[in-house]
Amino acid sequence: MKFFISDQIKNIPYYPKALMYGHEDGWVRLSSNENPFPPSEKVLETILDALFAINRYPGGEKELKDDLAVAYHLSAEHFLIGNGSNELIEMSFRAMRHDGRNGVIITESSFTFYEIAARIYGYETRKVPLAGFSTDLRKIAEQIDEKTRIIFLNNPLNPTGTIYGQDEFQRFVTSVPEDILIVVDEAYAEFAESKSFPKTLTYIRDYPVLILRTFSKAYGLAGLRVGYGIGDPMLVSFLERTKQPFSINLIAILAAQAALGDAERLARVLDNNRSAKRFYYQALQDISLEYIPTETNFVLVKIGSKAEEITKRLFDRKVLVRFMGAYGLPDYIRISFGTPRENAHCIEELKRLT
Amino acid sequence: MKFFISDQIKNIPYYPKALMYGHEDGWVRLSSNENPFPPSEKVLETILDALFAINRYPGGEKELKDDLAVAYHLSAEHFLIGNGSNELIEMSFRAMRHDGRNGVIITESSFTFYEIAARIYGYETRKVPLAGFSTDLRKIAEQIDEKTRIIFLNNPLNPTGTIYGQDEFQRFVTSVPEDILIVVDEAYAEFAESKSFPKTLTYIRDYPVLILRTFSKAYGLAGLRVGYGIGDPMLVSFLERTKQPFSINLIAILAAQAALGDAERLARVLDNNRSAKRFYYQALQDISLEYIPTETNFVLVKIGSKAEEITKRLFDRKVLVRFMGAYGLPDYIRISFGTPRENAHCIEELKRLT
Repeated sequence: MKFFISDQIKNIPYYPKALMYGHEDGWVRLSSNENPFPPSEKVLETILDALFAINRYPGGEKELKDDLAVAYHLSAEHFLIGNGSNELIEMSFRAMRHDGRNGVIITESSFTFYEIAARIYGYETRKVPLAGFSTDLRKIAEQIDEKTRIIFLNNPLNPTGTIYGQDEFQRFVTSVPEDILIVVDEAYAEFAESKSFPKTLTYIRDYPVLILRTFSKAYGLAGLRVGYGIGDPMLVSFLERTKQPFSINLIAILAAQAALGDAERLARVLDNNRSAKRFYYQALQDISLEYIPTETNFVLVKIGSKAEEITKRLFDRKVLVRFMGAYGLPDYIRISFGTPRENAHCIEELKRLT
Repeated sequence: MKFFISDQIKNIPYYPKALMYGHEDGWVRLSSNENPFPPSEKVLETILDALFAINRYPGGEKELKDDLAVAYHLSAEHFLIGNGSNELIEMSFRAMRHDGRNGVIITESSFTFYEIAARIYGYETRKVPLAGFSTDLRKIAEQIDEKTRIIFLNNPLNPTGTIYGQDEFQRFVTSVPEDILIVVDEAYAEFAESKSFPKTLTYIRDYPVLILRTFSKAYGLAGLRVGYGIGDPMLVSFLERTKQPFSINLIAILAAQAALGDAERLARVLDNNRSAKRFYYQALQDISLEYIPTETNFVLVKIGSKAEEITKRLFDRKVLVRFMGAYGLPDYIRISFGTPRENAHCIEELKRLT
């Protein structure tokens, strides 16, 4: 028996599979930019109410869109709900497919799923190196050619934590030909403190910009998989046609709706994040480790040639951080912000090892 | 601003969006072939345990595969987990993509998502009419040509409830060229009582057969979205490369594992289904309505020219059944089996109206 699988598919690298490490007690899990807090009471209550209906197919997307519309002062047709942002990335590839014009531009060292998804959907990816540790919008614009179909931006940028600002984005968006989709993944936007963080929302009416946001980070629902897109209603309606029915779990939709309504919890999460950032900045300076100032819930730390080894030794001590070799930054580790206790523990172990 | 969306995508019909009707008390929801029972205690306990970890990215696919391997006496590499069977259908399209050879054969009047997904992924669909109310394997085999890439079968068949048998399948599978993928969607297999229901599992080693099963029906987790595929390990590994990381919700994976281990609950569900079937057969005969004998958890009932109107009038009485016009069967309605009380109520209302 033989299978006719195209080489394009055969050569797709495996995305590292989810580790179950750190779901047990005793682990400090600072490797996946997760929210360190368990769900709020409001979210838990909502889920408990829904449990007895899990034998039914899920509804509720419309209601979540309505709530997002209120939160963003837009109409519900501007929103697209996905099974995590990943599904929204996939919908973009599906909807924009066009034979012979299959170029995608992404930033080198950014989220690896963009490239995997590009390969799955038959696109050719061009990667633009970082400028220092930041997205190089100028070089991305230069790389556009007649084959370019989609540009993926990630702001703030994972794994460096940097942002491009409003003025830069304004110059960029007005220079890109209007038949190229600009997908701006703003998964970490809620954590950004800089005043120059772009008001991307103001561009969706006049430019082909699709914003991706998620409930996985600041809203703390990574395990449930809910992302949303914001864009022009016509664009959203085309993307939505490429979406499977019932792609999102009943519990996930209802929990997302509850989390969106829980402003108090969000404020606490962002408070904790600001404190954690101050703590790491100070502690890293104290042990003479360089870091990249961050607009997210993680920090990129320069360790040097022993970065991989230190990651492993932290693992042996049940502290999970992410070695950045796979992102082309082999001297660095990425530490996600945990609870105050977890952060202190991580720094203590790091101090012992460096 | 213009969007370059290909006509293929623009012309994708909307899949009917999930209705929230019937999630409230007072509705009898017999329209979506759902399991009428809320989750078992084992499933509920598992979910409650997991709730405090929903801020973490999901793991657990490996563990679910291990349990499936034990249940099926196969190794774990034979299994593929999807966000509902829909994701598995999509993975099949993605993995098999091959320019210029994009033919798909499906059965007319079957699950509409096959055709929608085919369109999304750039395939051309050929539909083979039912033979009576059954899959016409002979005609499907005749329709194969040099462009054929994938054949989708659904056994038992939704919405008629019929099956093809072991001998028919044996003749079919041995006649199909070995470079065509045969996807057999067995979402309703647990309900099949006929001794001639094919042992599809015995073909996966020597034929390009991928079996799709689901936790949405007999296992009662439609709201959580977990399906699985069973096939040759090499085929499974290729398909898996086209899958997004973390496509399945943490709660969903753990609940599926708990449901798989709850043999007692499954036995009760199947018992209820057998009773419901006997009840409907007798009751429909009593009110002189023709039906198609079923191997599933639903029954197709001939109403005649008033089928759509009766569906609407049942809706007004808060009884949801599915009018089959969209499936090309405008004289029929499909009734999913509910609890004994729901079934009695449905028949009572039907009696009043016909």
